[in-house]
Formats: sequence, C-alpha cells, structure tokens
Amino acid sequence: MDSGALLDLLGNENRRRILRLLARKPCYVTEISEYLGVSPKAVIDHLRRLEEAGVVESRTDEKRRKYFHIARNLRLEVTVSRHGFGAKSAYPASRDLDLTRCHHLSIDGVADVAAGVDDGADEDADDETDDDASGDVASLAADLAELESLERELSLAQRWVQGRLADVRDDLAGALDADDHEGLYAEVVAAVADGAGTVEALSRRVDAPAEVVEHAIGDLLERGVIEPDGDDGWRVTDSE
Amino acid sequence: MDSGALLDLLGNENRRRILRLLARKPCYVTEISEYLGVSPKAVIDHLRRLEEAGVVESRTDEKRRKYFHIARNLRLEVTVSRHGFGAKSAYPASRDLDLTRCHHLSIDGVADVAAGVDDGADEDADDETDDDASGDVASLAADLAELESLERELSLAQRWVQGRLADVRDDLAGALDADDHEGLYAEVVAAVADGAGTVEALSRRVDAPAEVVEHAIGDLLERGVIEPDGDDGWRVTDSE
Repeated sequence: MDSGALLDLLGNENRRRILRLLARKPCYVTEISEYLGVSPKAVIDHLRRLEEAGVVESRTDEKRRKYFHIARNLRLEVTVSRHGFGAKSAYPASRDLDLTRCHHLSIDGVADVAAGVDDGADEDADDETDDDASGDVASLAADLAELESLERELSLAQRWVQGRLADVRDDLAGALDADDHEGLYAEVVAAVADGAGTVEALSRRVDAPAEVVEHAIGDLLERGVIEPDGDDGWRVTDSE
Repeated sequence: MDSGALLDLLGNENRRRILRLLARKPCYVTEISEYLGVSPKAVIDHLRRLEEAGVVESRTDEKRRKYFHIARNLRLEVTVSRHGFGAKSAYPASRDLDLTRCHHLSIDGVADVAAGVDDGADEDADDETDDDASGDVASLAADLAELESLERELSLAQRWVQGRLADVRDDLAGALDADDHEGLYAEVVAAVADGAGTVEALSRRVDAPAEVVEHAIGDLLERGVIEPDGDDGWRVTDSE
C-alpha cells in the first residue's frame, strides 16, 4: 500500500481510535459508535475507507451482525529531516527472510531467529523447537517478550542511525559548500559513492528530475568532487 | 512530539509535499505556492500548522524575504496488526547512545559505530578519525552510503520482527483460547512473563484500563495460565 494513502488514512484521530479498538477485538458498528461517541454514519464512513484500503475487513456472524477486524499487518516509517522527507510502508516480512544478507547487523538470542539465519542444515531442529513451543503458554510468552525487546532495540538503533545520518549529511554538505543545493549535492555524492553510475539511477536514488541531477553532476565534476570512472559513471575523487 | 499530532500533520498530501520540498532547500511562500499549484493563503496555513508543531522554522534574509526550512529531525513508526495499533514518534538519538545495552542486536562495519559501542577507552582514536573525515568528501560519502545501507537492514529486520511477533501472538492467543479477549490476554501474559508485577504496570504496558486488566488477571489465574509469585505479582505457569 502506498505510504501517502496510508498517512491520509491514519491522519484522522477517529480512524486511529477505531484501529486501536479493532486491534483489541472485532467490533460491530454500534459498539464502535458508542465507544467513540461518534455517530454510526461517521463510523460507517471511516470503516468504508479503511476497508477500501484493505486495512480492515468484515465478516457476518450467525446473528447476521457484521463484525469488523484488522485485515492485515502493516508497518509505516516516516522520517523528516533537513535532508529529506521519507515515508515507506511495508508488510511484515516472512520468517524465511534471509537476514544473513545483512552486512552490518546481527541478531542474537531471540528464539527461532535461527530459522531465518541458518543455512537450512538445522531446519529439523528448529521445527522441533516450534512444535514444543506452540502448545506451551510459558515459552510462547517468553518468546513474545524477547521479540518485543528486540523490537525496542531495533527502534533505538534506527534512531541512532537517523542521528548519525543527519550528522554525516551535515558534514558532507559543509564539505561540499554548495549553498542552497547542499542537501541534493550530498545525496548525489553519496549515491555515486554507493555505485550509482547513470543519471537515471541517480535521479531515482535522490528522487529528483534528470535535468537537476545532470546539472549537479556537471557542477560536481567541474569542482573536482567527483571524476569520470571508465566509460560511463563516476567515482568520488579520493582527496580534494 | 505526540505521534497522534504528527500523524494529523502528515495526513495531508500538500503538507507532505511542502516537507519534501523544504527538505531539499529552504523556500519562501511564493516558491512553495507555485511549485505546489496551491494558493499562497493555503500554503501559509499549512506552514503555520507545521511551524506551531515545531517541524518547520523560518528565517528572514537581508531582502526581508521569509524562508522556511525543516526545524528538526523527526522519526515516526506506525504498526497496525490484529494484535495492536501502535504509533510512536521520536527524535533521532545522539551518537553517544549506548548500543551495548542491546541484548539481541549487534552492529558491525559502520564507520564511527565504535563511538557509540566502545567503553570510552578509544575515544581519542575515534575523534581523530572524525577530524580526518570531516574535510574529506570521499570518506564522508562512503560513511553516508554505509549508514544508508545499515538503515535499510534495520528496516528489514524490523519487518521480520513484526512478522514473527504476529506469528507468536497468534500462537499464544490460540493456546490461551480466550475468544474475544485473546489479543488482550496474550499481551497480559507476555507482560507478566517480562516481569510486569502490578496491575498498574500491566495496565500501562498493554494500554488497557485497570478494571479490564484485573478481570483478565483473575481469569488467567483461575485457568492456571499464570500463578501468584511471592507477595504480589505473578509468573506464567510453567506447563499447563
């Protein structure tokens, strides 16, 4: 789902309250309306928008009462900084996600993490652990507490990375001394350093029109910050 | 800043476009109005709301033209699932954040991460690296690319954790067999497993009124899922 559309949906207090309520238990319109102190008509309208976006679903019980519930798990991250505004939404990744592809990150001591990290040789052992666990409230509760703690740590690490990114972007913009364009220039240089070799690729990476990127590349070449690298593409000049 | 207020602000396409524009360079009202194709009056209104929330600031240049720019870095995370609706906003953490407190997470191979992870003995060495780096576009650009890659990995890991959290909560709710209350009961049991020992603490952790938590505790005790632990507090019963 598009992150803009999701922000539009979540940018309404009553829709957030409806989601908070439905995340606790499935509800029907009258319940929601009474809980929120909002007319049934308004509740129906909010539910329709949430349903159209696929965030909420309904089913009808034997008494023909229509219950609404959260349809799927969603995640949204927004960062606002002097160097960019970014919003991305995503579905939770499956447990088979290969976290070994991470170069900078390792995760330890969380139950079943092995299933995502191991090379498959231990799969039987993991399955066994799962079978043991699924009937056992105590061990599931412990897994849950561990995952929640990992979630908090990842959040903390991401806040740390945001801070460091802002620092490095500030330093880079300062080193480039590019007045009004400094934010853009810093992004272009970072993308070049990371291997972006065409105006197209850069334009996508820094989210700016091709003409703007071409102009930045021309200026950065002229100033010797970057230099041609082979047939096409550039590299960051090693020392100014 | 309150995450609800931030979602209200970001839940408007034109305000998001203004932020995207200001993240690239400081702008004055006419510029923004022309770029967005929105009346100056509407732009001023959006800017006022963003300014009041402290997301945007202005300064007046020598020609007495008022430029708006992003005031500070912000981060917002929203998760929607059958087990909860959560939104939290935070400022980026400082570089001195102690990531060694993380039990499950380790970060490697990112420049200057040492500054956050080391015990202080290496501080001089780190400072030296910083001094070297800040004038050197190539090394700053490489740092930036590395941090951006770490940021992507953290995002991926968080999506993985969300998926696993949903799985474990499903299993736990299934094991508890608690009908409509299953989501709440699973959260209460997980919080008890994680050491929450009073109704107050539980109420805060699972974001539910004290009476609701008391009722859940009573039911879970009766069913033998949890048991008293010492004077006050509970623990999850080891096997059902």
